[in-house]
Amino acid sequence: MGVAVLTAILSEPDAIMSAAASFRLEKDLLGTLEVPADAYYGIQTLRAMHNFRLSGVPLAHYPKLVIALAMVKQAAADANHQLGHLDGDKHAAISQACARLIRGEFHEQFVVDVIQGGAGTSTNMNANEVIANLALEAMGRAKGDYQALHPNNDVNMAQSTNDAYPTAIRLGLLLGHNTLLASLDSLIRAFAAKGEEFAGIIKMGRTQLQDAVPMTLGQEFRGFATTLGEDLDRLKRLVPEMLTEVNLGGTAIGTGINADPRYQKLAVTRLAAISGQPLVAAADLIEASSDMGAFVLLSAMLKRTAVKLSKICNDLRLLSSGPRTGINEINLPPRQPGSSIMPGKVNPVIPEAVNQVAFEVIGNDLAVTLAAEAGQLQLNVMEPLIAYKMFDSMRLLQRAMDMLREHCIVGITANAAHCQHLVEHSIGLVTALNPYIGYENATRIAKLALDSGRGVLELVREEQLLDDEMLADILRPENMIAPRLVPLRG
Amino acid sequence: MGVAVLTAILSEPDAIMSAAASFRLEKDLLGTLEVPADAYYGIQTLRAMHNFRLSGVPLAHYPKLVIALAMVKQAAADANHQLGHLDGDKHAAISQACARLIRGEFHEQFVVDVIQGGAGTSTNMNANEVIANLALEAMGRAKGDYQALHPNNDVNMAQSTNDAYPTAIRLGLLLGHNTLLASLDSLIRAFAAKGEEFAGIIKMGRTQLQDAVPMTLGQEFRGFATTLGEDLDRLKRLVPEMLTEVNLGGTAIGTGINADPRYQKLAVTRLAAISGQPLVAAADLIEASSDMGAFVLLSAMLKRTAVKLSKICNDLRLLSSGPRTGINEINLPPRQPGSSIMPGKVNPVIPEAVNQVAFEVIGNDLAVTLAAEAGQLQLNVMEPLIAYKMFDSMRLLQRAMDMLREHCIVGITANAAHCQHLVEHSIGLVTALNPYIGYENATRIAKLALDSGRGVLELVREEQLLDDEMLADILRPENMIAPRLVPLRG
Amino acid sequence: MGVAVLTAILSEPDAIMSAAASFRLEKDLLGTLEVPADAYYGIQTLRAMHNFRLSGVPLAHYPKLVIALAMVKQAAADANHQLGHLDGDKHAAISQACARLIRGEFHEQFVVDVIQGGAGTSTNMNANEVIANLALEAMGRAKGDYQALHPNNDVNMAQSTNDAYPTAIRLGLLLGHNTLLASLDSLIRAFAAKGEEFAGIIKMGRTQLQDAVPMTLGQEFRGFATTLGEDLDRLKRLVPEMLTEVNLGGTAIGTGINADPRYQKLAVTRLAAISGQPLVAAADLIEASSDMGAFVLLSAMLKRTAVKLSKICNDLRLLSSGPRTGINEINLPPRQPGSSIMPGKVNPVIPEAVNQVAFEVIGNDLAVTLAAEAGQLQLNVMEPLIAYKMFDSMRLLQRAMDMLREHCIVGITANAAHCQHLVEHSIGLVTALNPYIGYENATRIAKLALDSGRGVLELVREEQLLDDEMLADILRPENMIAPRLVPLRG
Amino acid sequence: MGVAVLTAILSEPDAIMSAAASFRLEKDLLGTLEVPADAYYGIQTLRAMHNFRLSGVPLAHYPKLVIALAMVKQAAADANHQLGHLDGDKHAAISQACARLIRGEFHEQFVVDVIQGGAGTSTNMNANEVIANLALEAMGRAKGDYQALHPNNDVNMAQSTNDAYPTAIRLGLLLGHNTLLASLDSLIRAFAAKGEEFAGIIKMGRTQLQDAVPMTLGQEFRGFATTLGEDLDRLKRLVPEMLTEVNLGGTAIGTGINADPRYQKLAVTRLAAISGQPLVAAADLIEASSDMGAFVLLSAMLKRTAVKLSKICNDLRLLSSGPRTGINEINLPPRQPGSSIMPGKVNPVIPEAVNQVAFEVIGNDLAVTLAAEAGQLQLNVMEPLIAYKMFDSMRLLQRAMDMLREHCIVGITANAAHCQHLVEHSIGLVTALNPYIGYENATRIAKLALDSGRGVLELVREEQLLDDEMLADILRPENMIAPRLVPLRG
Repeated sequence: MGVAVLTAILSEPDAIMSAAASFRLEKDLLGTLEVPADAYYGIQTLRAMHNFRLSGVPLAHYPKLVIALAMVKQAAADANHQLGHLDGDKHAAISQACARLIRGEFHEQFVVDVIQGGAGTSTNMNANEVIANLALEAMGRAKGDYQALHPNNDVNMAQSTNDAYPTAIRLGLLLGHNTLLASLDSLIRAFAAKGEEFAGIIKMGRTQLQDAVPMTLGQEFRGFATTLGEDLDRLKRLVPEMLTEVNLGGTAIGTGINADPRYQKLAVTRLAAISGQPLVAAADLIEASSDMGAFVLLSAMLKRTAVKLSKICNDLRLLSSGPRTGINEINLPPRQPGSSIMPGKVNPVIPEAVNQVAFEVIGNDLAVTLAAEAGQLQLNVMEPLIAYKMFDSMRLLQRAMDMLREHCIVGITANAAHCQHLVEHSIGLVTALNPYIGYENATRIAKLALDSGRGVLELVREEQLLDDEMLADILRPENMIAPRLVPLRG
Repeated sequence: MGVAVLTAILSEPDAIMSAAASFRLEKDLLGTLEVPADAYYGIQTLRAMHNFRLSGVPLAHYPKLVIALAMVKQAAADANHQLGHLDGDKHAAISQACARLIRGEFHEQFVVDVIQGGAGTSTNMNANEVIANLALEAMGRAKGDYQALHPNNDVNMAQSTNDAYPTAIRLGLLLGHNTLLASLDSLIRAFAAKGEEFAGIIKMGRTQLQDAVPMTLGQEFRGFATTLGEDLDRLKRLVPEMLTEVNLGGTAIGTGINADPRYQKLAVTRLAAISGQPLVAAADLIEASSDMGAFVLLSAMLKRTAVKLSKICNDLRLLSSGPRTGINEINLPPRQPGSSIMPGKVNPVIPEAVNQVAFEVIGNDLAVTLAAEAGQLQLNVMEPLIAYKMFDSMRLLQRAMDMLREHCIVGITANAAHCQHLVEHSIGLVTALNPYIGYENATRIAKLALDSGRGVLELVREEQLLDDEMLADILRPENMIAPRLVPLRG
Repeated sequence: MGVAVLTAILSEPDAIMSAAASFRLEKDLLGTLEVPADAYYGIQTLRAMHNFRLSGVPLAHYPKLVIALAMVKQAAADANHQLGHLDGDKHAAISQACARLIRGEFHEQFVVDVIQGGAGTSTNMNANEVIANLALEAMGRAKGDYQALHPNNDVNMAQSTNDAYPTAIRLGLLLGHNTLLASLDSLIRAFAAKGEEFAGIIKMGRTQLQDAVPMTLGQEFRGFATTLGEDLDRLKRLVPEMLTEVNLGGTAIGTGINADPRYQKLAVTRLAAISGQPLVAAADLIEASSDMGAFVLLSAMLKRTAVKLSKICNDLRLLSSGPRTGINEINLPPRQPGSSIMPGKVNPVIPEAVNQVAFEVIGNDLAVTLAAEAGQLQLNVMEPLIAYKMFDSMRLLQRAMDMLREHCIVGITANAAHCQHLVEHSIGLVTALNPYIGYENATRIAKLALDSGRGVLELVREEQLLDDEMLADILRPENMIAPRLVPLRG
Repeated sequence: MGVAVLTAILSEPDAIMSAAASFRLEKDLLGTLEVPADAYYGIQTLRAMHNFRLSGVPLAHYPKLVIALAMVKQAAADANHQLGHLDGDKHAAISQACARLIRGEFHEQFVVDVIQGGAGTSTNMNANEVIANLALEAMGRAKGDYQALHPNNDVNMAQSTNDAYPTAIRLGLLLGHNTLLASLDSLIRAFAAKGEEFAGIIKMGRTQLQDAVPMTLGQEFRGFATTLGEDLDRLKRLVPEMLTEVNLGGTAIGTGINADPRYQKLAVTRLAAISGQPLVAAADLIEASSDMGAFVLLSAMLKRTAVKLSKICNDLRLLSSGPRTGINEINLPPRQPGSSIMPGKVNPVIPEAVNQVAFEVIGNDLAVTLAAEAGQLQLNVMEPLIAYKMFDSMRLLQRAMDMLREHCIVGITANAAHCQHLVEHSIGLVTALNPYIGYENATRIAKLALDSGRGVLELVREEQLLDDEMLADILRPENMIAPRLVPLRG
């Protein structure tokens, strides 16, 4: 049963019931329910499915979260086994179950909606139940035979949702963030390559959408690479700083009640080893149980990247506007016909889609902020939404950056002649002549050019303010696009 | 092929390719592509699938949008046929295709990601292509035989994405909003019923989380019904005001270029008839082509409902806090065991989930705002995100309200004795005695009660400030929870 | 002492103490404080000044709020007098005090910071104290002689902050909103006038920043008028619907405890008469005491106007971009030299400032949303922030619209020849030829024009696809900018 | 003339005109205006005052910004003098002028509204003009005698608004952030002190507002200190990382056009020396001219602190709720009488005000985000709003934290007996017994206690599940609030 089918289950849980051949009975504090015989999840997962039919997005949509949950359960089982609380048979069976989840198997059993009440209890129980039933099978037992191995007593041993779940979220984001960084890195390289490719193309710079002074198209694209490069550096530092401190071992509220005093250190050490991530125990577990600050800042950092991508895409759309009545300095590769009614129209569809992703990421950041602020006393019950939006933003940004690179940046070409033409006919050119002909002359020439529609150079030549050689020297690209030693004033 | 399978396609488009037995070739301005032989969509849809792999949510997730697109195509075909631009055979075939979509068939063919560049062109072309191929089959032709009936020339005749798509979004939201209103109405009734059920339960009102003066629990729940009732009224008025004005007939930018002068009136009239919605043509089509104001306000109205629901759920969680160390005035029905580590704990999981939905809706509203602000000149290219977030917020709210009602409100019970106990032992009770014993006595008694830990009534009796009969009269619920004629001061 | 000086007091309350010649002693539940002898406010205001030094913005910044507070106090006094609870002398003195505030006198006595805890208690007490002391003076008594007339017992009689304050906020916004509407109306007229002035100027319309089809500059400016006109209509309807329902008479939590049963009706009727606003009593006073829904929606409506203004200003900046390397279809009136380093540069500073105001209003709307969501049980203690942000957004928008009209819109001129030139050289022109030369020819011509850099008309003429007369007819402005009867296809 | 008077000017510029005794004439590209004779600002400042009457907040409200502007001008003058572009007399006069501004003199001359178009040009010119006129006076010249020393040619030499202004904003925030950090540090210490003071007070922890397991009140307050301590650490690292990289020397668009090649290094070195801040030149000046990423992340970090403060204040309000019908574990110091109608009521006004500041800071962060996203091509013209909101958020947070500490935290007392009572009567206590009496017994006892209203301990004793000694040992505070070695299961 794949993810796709699970989506169907989520939207039509009753339909699937009648389709299933048989059921097993499971029982909890609230009574007895029929669980589909072939389901690895159990009664508490089933209750959550009935309770929460909201987003339609099951946990399985975020594989790194499922893997992280399995790693947490493995680490806890290792620690409990080593401390003598969990016997060897159970430990072996749980380990086998966790290994399968970590390999990517049985993710479709993670069916609970990502938006859920209970501060993640349903997610934690979904993991406990699936692992228990996989372990039972490995032990040659029937699914649901919890006397032999229990989701709570054994799989969840020494854990509370309140420490296992936040730990898994952090670990899941850590496991997933490399993909994001790789996409960002590739995008930066693509911009940098264009920066080199366009290094020789002189064009007008614009401030406040008004003609300013010359620069190269290469400088412009290198600027895109630089600004995203700052985000790559920042994310590389921020992600581990925000996510490696975990509260595993704090149990219910951070006091570690009912946990073996040696447990926390062991469990975190095991989790670091299993995951290959530099996890450490939070110093103040009371604080760590309820604090969402790490997510608030990390989400904001993703928002920053979204803001930069949106600004860059706005620029790409401006620079490629036209072809005849806009700026038209660059051409974006055509990706699809633009209009049935307007022959030949090709639109900047890729940057437009990136803008929309950016807006969604900014919206997600607000949802994270609201959820973080809503924490109360020893817990933040809104953490499922925070987790959802963090995973969502990371995935959306990663996909949007891949799309932007593959379908747009690498195929951009420059209209060098048009760029050159715009420079030569711009009035902003007069700024470069400023140190030679004086501010007063420059202002007069600028005004004259604007009123008459004539060119600055033409007027300067006509008035013989500078000879042709001097003019050519001043206007050499390498002289206009960087500081240069100019004659002292006066 | 169902929605579930389509999700798989979206995430693995290449995989599905190799699975399909055969292909047909389709061609557009950018070249030729292989379209799966059994697909009703065509080359432009395929391009969009390759271009936009972002949210993973296909158009098919919002059936009312698909139905609305079909209705728009039907209305245009009717108008074009009546004006003599579309022949009878084509009209009949297109009509048959649209009818099937309106009945709910073939929605799985709407595979484009809801987040897309191109201002909805891919959505519009997805509709044009599916309808064309369904019509071709109805005409006994092969899929892709566009010489016989063309997605652009025939299905999209006299339309531009820029008028057909915004019209379909408005219509789709109109078609869907009744479900939302019905859920809201049911929720209001549930609160009102509790308001009546709890009419006789006297309790302390609280301002600033501090004990204030008595009220009934029924008044509190009736207040929830009232505040949501205002939103029901507002939505009932606002939805049609915002959504019934459509720009169909404006074509590319609202000038109606290349459209028959009689077309707009006919097409809108037909669309109103087909959909049963009171649609009218926008007076200024230039403005209507780019303006997103209707969505900004409607999204904000959904945000308002979300804010109210969040406040109500916060109150429910406060009122049911405890059971021993909180307010504990009401009991929410238990929906799932609360904790593996804490025996007997049951949590307010349903209101918690509603809070999170509210935060998501508020985040969506920000995304809509950002997208609306980003419109430029004659079009807003961010409309796909706006449409997505509008449909998403409406669905989320509707589901959250059903969940809240079914799984929480109808099962709420009151701890009447505890409520009564709190009133009797509160210091706020002194306010009711104020007009009888004077402000100075009242303040002294309040302070004495607070310092000694004793009860206000006990102290009043002890000091013989009021006799028992008088006290009983003042403290009769009906006397404390409404204005009453008190002795004139002084 | 003017508002300006008060700002100084707020920032340096201690400094002013030593400057004042003398003090009077006032006393409340928490003890005794020295109040400046010449201050009309009293001890509770002084406490609030010490407690809240946050925004530095005193209540006096919003004169309509001060006036509304005075009107509420007047209405309550009238009702209390009529019911026999307030004697004639006191009523006369209070009336005289309120009249002076309503005339605009003594506003500088409203010194409390607009951001304050206590759900508006400090604002209410600031009003009670100033009115009491003004009334005392009118009675020939010393300031602070509260035995003769008391801020709480007399001025605040039958009121709670929880009903008087929300009522005053609503009334204050009602009193102020006409200025906003007038500014919006003037702006709309300015855009409409430009719409007429530019009715004959043909230009290219643009979708997705790409050349689309022709329109007139007049249509574009009329569109701005239309979209703002919708907001004017909406505000005209929404403001009274949102703000005329008041909870005066509900006292502490809406139960009307300790109020005379006849009081509510009388007080609201008086307030309506005094203010000239169609105020009515809220039907459910419990709900009305805590509900902030009216502000959430009204703030969102202001946000909508801000979004539209921002979009329009973005368009103005795009259309005036250049002068040589941008679109340059219009000229904004120069308001200040643009650059010291770039001679002749003039920037679109007015629209840029409007954009920033729009962003601030959107930020304010978020603050209002957060504050509304934070209400708990029988009250929303965040109402002071809500009031502040509502008044702030209304004032900012009103000023921004006046600035935009006066300093920008009325002085805009068109570059008609350049607009015409762009149309003639655009490729989008081919769309108008589509129905005459066929889609295939049109596409071929478009591509040829794009590749060769030549003009569409030139190529059409060269290929003799249309004769000059026909071409001239098609390209007549009135034929390109509206639907027209075209030859039937095929 | 002080800040207060300037506020009056801003709101009534015309009034002040007639009041001023005389004028001097100044001239710029747009014509001639009358500048008040005693004003140090000049014509361009005057234009900006007429153009922008929006927020009413003049630049002078943020003294660190004014000082930073003066430091930038000093550094530029030093570099220009050293390179031989600015003569000794002018340099001396400019230096004297800058020194006076840095000392805090003449700040009232910074009259331009903080919200302005022109990307900060008006702010830069306000500084250039004030410094020029102060320098002219120092040279014994009349104000306005710009032939002798010119605002643009001399004070603004080698600068553009586009490098001088962003540099000044960063420096101004750097200069001001220590105050914020000091306030945060003091608040942390106050929480930590309470953490120690309350170390011995055992109380119930609560998750999801439901009774969970015991902890100490000291742990709770230490958690507040910890979470804010993380923000202090983060800010200490983030502020310099975000703000020390400046683009001074990039001139108009980052190419450094018309600047001496040696200028940038000299100017930045001088600025670092003058300010005592570790400023460095940005590596990519093109990027640095338009990038607002530093502000986006820093504002988000302030938002994070606001979110944490809001959560803490929500907790304080919950913990002090009551006194009789809430949690009532702590008492906040009374700051002002709470209600005229409810005798003895004291409200948590200080935390409530902090919540509102937090909401404003979150709203500010959104405004910063919107402004950052709106940058176009080589500049972000929305930087004035960004600067305004950054300074505003820093000041608001600093003031709110001082208020919270002084007026609330240091005066908090605990109701130790009530806390103890709640623990003893809670059902959550059963969790601590879990390892000793087994999960099944624990669940049964919990249910029995809940149904009967009796205490857990009472029932355990009655059933003789544990002897008194054992029970006393388990329930010793030090044993309940931390991990402890429990008997192995089974």
